[in-house]
Amino acid sequence: MLSKNKIKIINSLVNKKFRDEFGLFVVEGEKIVSEILASNFKVEEIYCLPEWNKKNPKVKNVVEINESELKKISSMNAPNQVLALVKIPEYDLDYNELASSLILGLEDVQDPGNLGTIIRTADWFGIKDIICSKKCVDVFNPKTVQATMGAFCRTRLHYSELSEFIQKMKSAKKSFPIYGTFMKGENIYEEILSQNGMILFGNESVGLTKEIEKLVDKKLFIPDYPAGNQSSSLNVAVATAIICSEFRRRN
Amino acid sequence: MLSKNKIKIINSLVNKKFRDEFGLFVVEGEKIVSEILASNFKVEEIYCLPEWNKKNPKVKNVVEINESELKKISSMNAPNQVLALVKIPEYDLDYNELASSLILGLEDVQDPGNLGTIIRTADWFGIKDIICSKKCVDVFNPKTVQATMGAFCRTRLHYSELSEFIQKMKSAKKSFPIYGTFMKGENIYEEILSQNGMILFGNESVGLTKEIEKLVDKKLFIPDYPAGNQSSSLNVAVATAIICSEFRRRN
Repeated sequence: MLSKNKIKIINSLVNKKFRDEFGLFVVEGEKIVSEILASNFKVEEIYCLPEWNKKNPKVKNVVEINESELKKISSMNAPNQVLALVKIPEYDLDYNELASSLILGLEDVQDPGNLGTIIRTADWFGIKDIICSKKCVDVFNPKTVQATMGAFCRTRLHYSELSEFIQKMKSAKKSFPIYGTFMKGENIYEEILSQNGMILFGNESVGLTKEIEKLVDKKLFIPDYPAGNQSSSLNVAVATAIICSEFRRRN
Repeated sequence: MLSKNKIKIINSLVNKKFRDEFGLFVVEGEKIVSEILASNFKVEEIYCLPEWNKKNPKVKNVVEINESELKKISSMNAPNQVLALVKIPEYDLDYNELASSLILGLEDVQDPGNLGTIIRTADWFGIKDIICSKKCVDVFNPKTVQATMGAFCRTRLHYSELSEFIQKMKSAKKSFPIYGTFMKGENIYEEILSQNGMILFGNESVGLTKEIEKLVDKKLFIPDYPAGNQSSSLNVAVATAIICSEFRRRN
């Protein structure tokens, strides 16, 4: 049985303001909840239908609810058995560890679905850390969480002043190349790409700002086909996928 | 001035049933409307703010409206100056032309944003024709149209029985390879990829059905990094992007 007040709190977590206030976010559905239970995230409470509880007898802090209650607290069109309240984690930035890794930098990415898809792609390609400018959409937005399909459990997102961060990384390690994607850049298929460094992607409408562009060591371009066709751009999550694939290709 | 009846008709076009009944779909925003005006699509009527009309004096069939009227007919959160009613086109399938092209096949892709992003990516990589199974989401869904960023003007979508279509193509031309993406397939980075043929992508949850899988000549796999990591899958629009990039890379 769910109290009115509990329903109100859970529903409030669609807003970043209340996620910050309570230090909690919501994860929904069988697949993502099972991923979060297998991760280091701290699950505070689980609300589920009796059928989910039967299948997962060892899980603690479980509250059984009925379908109509699940509908009241879910932000999905078709709620899927289970919803978890999870503590928002805090990660420390280890500049030395980051300096030898390949990481992503996102400037003002606004669409929750794009951010979620980027996290899912980063996970596929073994990229563990993503530095987001403070104007990026929040990773614990329900739409972002769902679009990651659980990949956010294996990826650390850091919200930071992007230009300051890049400058710190450059001074922490001599060889830490900064890559960015531009309409005027070098053909990515012809470049020798580093195994460490940062790949930057910009806002859906305006791309990277001039301030960040100045910090880029190597401008990359994904060639259109045939060259100079009428197409105008790629979706940012799509550009991220093609670039990550190039950095990680093995043949 | 917009009549109540007109508002009702325009709003009804978010549903496929009414798009089919009226033979019309909606395009919104400065960028996409300018692309549609430059295309072969037939624009039936344009509803715009006076500022858009001033910037586009030669456009015909324009009805000036005010911001509150635009809000009533728009399905965008932040309506952008102009909305066009466009006739749904009909394309003939020219099997001979298709047989010498690289085309995409989509089986039961359900998310309008994914379909729109796939169309935008296809346009970037010079892929003109996309064959969709009849259970795919409709291309003239407003979310799909917007996600294409205008690329649907340069791409032909055909809704067809996918397995029948593939069988016809195979008998029309000796060498028309059918590719599909699978969790168990050949490393795409190591394959010699044809300049014609069809690349298949499946539904977001279940991938390609067994029926379609049987028709695939070459199963492809996008390697994760490092191999066998914990990630489980890629978004279908992301997989499409990486595969199209591999087919079209020039270096």
